[in-house]
Amino acid sequence: MSTSRSADPLRAPFADWTRAVQARVEAALSRHLPPAEATPARLHQAMRYASLNGGKRVRPLLAFAAGELSAAPAERIEVVACAVELIHAYSLVHDDLPCMDDDVLRRGRPTCHVEYDEPTALLVGDSLQSLAFELLARPDFGGHAKNPERQLEMVRLLAFSSGSLGMAGGQAIDLDAVGRELNQPELELMHALKTGALIRAAVMLGALCGEPLGEAASVALDRFAKRAGLLFQVVDDILDCTASTATLGKTAGKDAAADKPTYVSLIGLERAREFADDLREQAVDALAVFGARAQRLLELTDFITRRNF
Amino acid sequence: MSTSRSADPLRAPFADWTRAVQARVEAALSRHLPPAEATPARLHQAMRYASLNGGKRVRPLLAFAAGELSAAPAERIEVVACAVELIHAYSLVHDDLPCMDDDVLRRGRPTCHVEYDEPTALLVGDSLQSLAFELLARPDFGGHAKNPERQLEMVRLLAFSSGSLGMAGGQAIDLDAVGRELNQPELELMHALKTGALIRAAVMLGALCGEPLGEAASVALDRFAKRAGLLFQVVDDILDCTASTATLGKTAGKDAAADKPTYVSLIGLERAREFADDLREQAVDALAVFGARAQRLLELTDFITRRNF
Repeated sequence: MSTSRSADPLRAPFADWTRAVQARVEAALSRHLPPAEATPARLHQAMRYASLNGGKRVRPLLAFAAGELSAAPAERIEVVACAVELIHAYSLVHDDLPCMDDDVLRRGRPTCHVEYDEPTALLVGDSLQSLAFELLARPDFGGHAKNPERQLEMVRLLAFSSGSLGMAGGQAIDLDAVGRELNQPELELMHALKTGALIRAAVMLGALCGEPLGEAASVALDRFAKRAGLLFQVVDDILDCTASTATLGKTAGKDAAADKPTYVSLIGLERAREFADDLREQAVDALAVFGARAQRLLELTDFITRRNF
Repeated sequence: MSTSRSADPLRAPFADWTRAVQARVEAALSRHLPPAEATPARLHQAMRYASLNGGKRVRPLLAFAAGELSAAPAERIEVVACAVELIHAYSLVHDDLPCMDDDVLRRGRPTCHVEYDEPTALLVGDSLQSLAFELLARPDFGGHAKNPERQLEMVRLLAFSSGSLGMAGGQAIDLDAVGRELNQPELELMHALKTGALIRAAVMLGALCGEPLGEAASVALDRFAKRAGLLFQVVDDILDCTASTATLGKTAGKDAAADKPTYVSLIGLERAREFADDLREQAVDALAVFGARAQRLLELTDFITRRNF
C-alpha cells in the first residue's frame, strides 16, 4: 500500500477502506454508548454487548459509500452511520427474543437475552432506538456548518424507515406469513420493509450528509438503494439455505425450519441466484449517472452479492 | 357554562379543560397513527388499541398546562403531547409483557399481548417509539413559525428522557431491585428515571412550544417537574396498596405481590402520605414565580395528588 493511500483511507483499496470504516464506526459507537459502569450498569453493559465488536457494518459502509456521491464530510456520515447501526442492533436484539425468532446465536456469540436475560434484552432494544434519534438531533452534529432542517429530515427518514411502515412493519408481515404461502409480490413487500427500508435509509442518510443531489440523481440513488436492499435479502435467503452456522455466525437453515417464506422456498435456489444477478445489474445500472464517484457503492454491491456463495 | 367558556375551552374550569385536552389529544393521536386497515393491518390495529381510548392522559395535560407559562400555541403543544403519550403507551405495552411485569389488565382492558400476541406487542412498542420521534421532526410542526433548532432540542429531550439514562434505565433499576432492599435515595433515583423522566419531559416540552423562558423560570419549572414526577409515583405506590383493581383499571397490589420496593413498603403508608404532601407543597412553591399563568399546573398537581385516595 502506498503512502498516499495510507494517508487517506477513503481512497484505499476496498478491503482497506472497509476495515477503516468499520474501525471508525466501532470507535464512534463506543463513544456514543453510555459507559459500561454508568448506572444502570447491567443495561449499559448489555447495550454495548449488543452493539460493539460485531457485524459487517453493511449499513454504515453503505452510508459512507453514498456520502461520496455528495462530497459529504466523514464526521457527519459517522453520526448517521452510528444511528442506523443502533437501529439495526436494536432490531436484532428484539428479533432474537424467544417470543419472536427465539434464536440463541448472533455474530458467533450468545444472543443478548441468552447472555443477559429477556427483560434486559427488551430494554436494550428500546434504549438503542432512543439513542439513535438522540444522536441525529445533536447540536454538534457534523461540525460547524449547521443545517437543522436537514437534521430533522434525517430524523423523519430514520423514524419512518424503522417504524410500522418500515422495518417493524416488515417484521409484522413476516410473523403473519409463517406457515402460509406468499406470492412473489407479497414476499417482495415484506423484504422491502423488513430489510430494505433500513438499507435504503443508510444510503439516503449518507448522501444527505453532503451537498444536495439534483432531482434525477436522487431518483437514481433511491432506485439503487431499493434494488440493493432487496439484493441483500435475496442473498440472505440463499445463504440461510447454503451456508453453515459457523460461516454465518447465526443459526443456519433457520427460516426453512421455521417454515418461513424465502426466495429459495418460493422460486428455488437456481432462480433465486438468477434473481440476485438481475438485482445486482439493476443496482449497478442505477449508479451510472454518478460516474466514478459511485466506485465504493459499486464495490459494496459486489460485496453484498458475493459474500459466501 | 357560559358562552365565552364554551368558545375557549382552555379558559374553562378544570374538569372541562381536562376533557377538552383529552378529546383533542385522542383525535390527534388517531390522525397520527396509521389507519387500522393499512398494511400490516394487525400491527396497526394493535398500535391503535394500545394508544387510543384510554388513560387519563396525564402527560399531555401537563404539556398543555406548561404551555400556558410560555404562551405556546395549542397546535404545537398538541404535537409534543402526542409524542410523549406515544412513548408512554409504548412503555406500558413493553412493561406488561410476560418477560417483564407479566400483566393481563391495563386501563380496564386486556393488555396488548393478551388481546393480540406477544411478538405483535413487542413490535407495537417499537413502532410507537419510532412514531413519536417522527412526529416531533415533522416539517409542518406547529404551523408556520418554523424553529427547527427548537424541534431538534425536543427530539433530544424526548430521546434522552426515554432511553437508558431515563425511563428505560429506571425500568432496568426496577428489575434489579426485585427482592432486595433499596434505601430511600436508591428508590428515588429509580422513580426519578422510571416515571419522573417522562413526566419532566412532558412539562419541559410543553413550555418549549412557546416563548423562551428566562433562566430563573426554567430552573423553577424543572424543579416543579421533578417534584411532580416523584409525587406521581408516590401516589401510584399508595394507590397500588389501597385501591381496588376495578378503580385502578390495572391489577392492584401487584408491586407488593412481586416483592418490588415501593414507598409504602419502605416507609409505610402513613409516612408515604406525608411525603406526598411534602412533594405537593414543594411543587406548588416552585410555581410561585409564574403567578396566575400557573393555574392549570397547580390544578393538575392537586389532581395528581388526590386521584382516588
